[in-house]
Amino acid sequence: MPIHFADRLLSACANKGAPVCVGLDPVYEKLPAELKKLEPVEAIERFSMGILEASAPHVPCVKPQAACYERHGAEGYAVYHRVTRAAKDMGLIVVGDAKRGDIGTSSAHYAAGLLAGPGGCDALTVNGYLGADGIEPFFEVAQKEGKGLFALVRTSNPGGDAIQRLRLADGRSIAEAVGDAVAELGRKSVGNCGYSLLGAVVGATKKEDAAALRARLPQQIFLVPGFGAQGGSADDVRACFKADGTGAIITASRSVIFAFEGKTGDWKNHVAAGAKDLKLQIPEILRHV
Amino acid sequence: MPIHFADRLLSACANKGAPVCVGLDPVYEKLPAELKKLEPVEAIERFSMGILEASAPHVPCVKPQAACYERHGAEGYAVYHRVTRAAKDMGLIVVGDAKRGDIGTSSAHYAAGLLAGPGGCDALTVNGYLGADGIEPFFEVAQKEGKGLFALVRTSNPGGDAIQRLRLADGRSIAEAVGDAVAELGRKSVGNCGYSLLGAVVGATKKEDAAALRARLPQQIFLVPGFGAQGGSADDVRACFKADGTGAIITASRSVIFAFEGKTGDWKNHVAAGAKDLKLQIPEILRHV
Repeated sequence: MPIHFADRLLSACANKGAPVCVGLDPVYEKLPAELKKLEPVEAIERFSMGILEASAPHVPCVKPQAACYERHGAEGYAVYHRVTRAAKDMGLIVVGDAKRGDIGTSSAHYAAGLLAGPGGCDALTVNGYLGADGIEPFFEVAQKEGKGLFALVRTSNPGGDAIQRLRLADGRSIAEAVGDAVAELGRKSVGNCGYSLLGAVVGATKKEDAAALRARLPQQIFLVPGFGAQGGSADDVRACFKADGTGAIITASRSVIFAFEGKTGDWKNHVAAGAKDLKLQIPEILRHV
Repeated sequence: MPIHFADRLLSACANKGAPVCVGLDPVYEKLPAELKKLEPVEAIERFSMGILEASAPHVPCVKPQAACYERHGAEGYAVYHRVTRAAKDMGLIVVGDAKRGDIGTSSAHYAAGLLAGPGGCDALTVNGYLGADGIEPFFEVAQKEGKGLFALVRTSNPGGDAIQRLRLADGRSIAEAVGDAVAELGRKSVGNCGYSLLGAVVGATKKEDAAALRARLPQQIFLVPGFGAQGGSADDVRACFKADGTGAIITASRSVIFAFEGKTGDWKNHVAAGAKDLKLQIPEILRHV
């Protein structure tokens, strides 16, 4: 049996000293000048590989955003897969941020293409609007291969409120109802650490929502985007952790990968410093959990 | 200004004589024996192109399922794009069934990669769980380029019920609340035919839900999967049309593309017959609308 994903993730966070994740969202226009001399697809590959090298000593986890690669067509898609493999070779845990979700048979195809096997990521973000049977095919692959999932429960964008905060007749928000479905499915595979292989994406921009979900989903690791550039504060993020300081992975992208903006010298050094900075913010956050 | 997507779609349906769509869900194991002699990626490309040729004389619209191509990695992804272009070259309207959805900046990347430009599909399925600002970047591209979108509102899988049928405190189901958000955004671009460029995916398996949504979303064209193999009946499908016989595109996949199963002779002839059959069922459905 492979090591359970949740155990693997928690131990990687302990080894690196902080539960943080660097989001790889390469955008050609924002790359360092030296890379903008290259064709876009080559440039985003070189940039991504540079981010991996600069981050790997400091963080346990990276999250490539599939959209940024898919915008460059099939060649960009190939880069996404090569970046995933390179990150795994460096010992990083790779969360493929592809937010896939479909009816069961199609989800099984996505699981085979994006999550399964040595070429697949360690964990994948999925969309739960289609219900449990849209997630189950991903779950089966994850369970068999020691991989993980993060289902979208509460997203960090302003428009997410309009749907996800609506109240059901039974008093729950829609996000809580989706979260409950995630918790129920997740119970089928819980690691020694007490967390399921199926976690939840919970944005860092509404701390009261995060606190309610934290209480409701004790077995879910929260993948928390929106810290920094998207407006999530230390206070918002804090609500995603349990009292023991586990239960959340804090993700930052722009504040790390574009940390070279407006600065001189090797861009990778600034990225490395950004990754370190991200990590150094965590003890302060956890001190008040 | 390009022709509005809804006008283009309705006129294509009128020209071909029925509002139907063939779903391209190629699965290597299920291909005709002669194609299984090839490598999987080449086989699904040859199969897809054969389906296009066999269907194009009979139907206005095809819907390639991105998952079936992505399961074959970057090469499969390249096939998806080539199939899209080939279908457009044959005059078919191509609905890319990719069910993408993310926060705004990432949705903009998906829109650039999958929907925009001559290489992009005519319309894309999107997931609305992230709210309007997750769909808006797709909408902007669609509006500018005469393209369309279908947002997931009510899916045809059994597990969709557990989320989408939940009742809100205000009496709406979650699907209706998502539908209302879709209708509101859709109002920004309505064609001469009275339909928006932003349609809705409404599964054919719950006719009372479909009827309620049909009444609620008068400007949305419904893309209706689940007819045939997934269990949707003529009765369920009927509820997706307006009294004038417009407002829905009926999609079938397995019953058409695998119509050769258990039969002898050229597989493409059976697919062509399957596409014709699909079309011939529509007048019977519409007679009782």
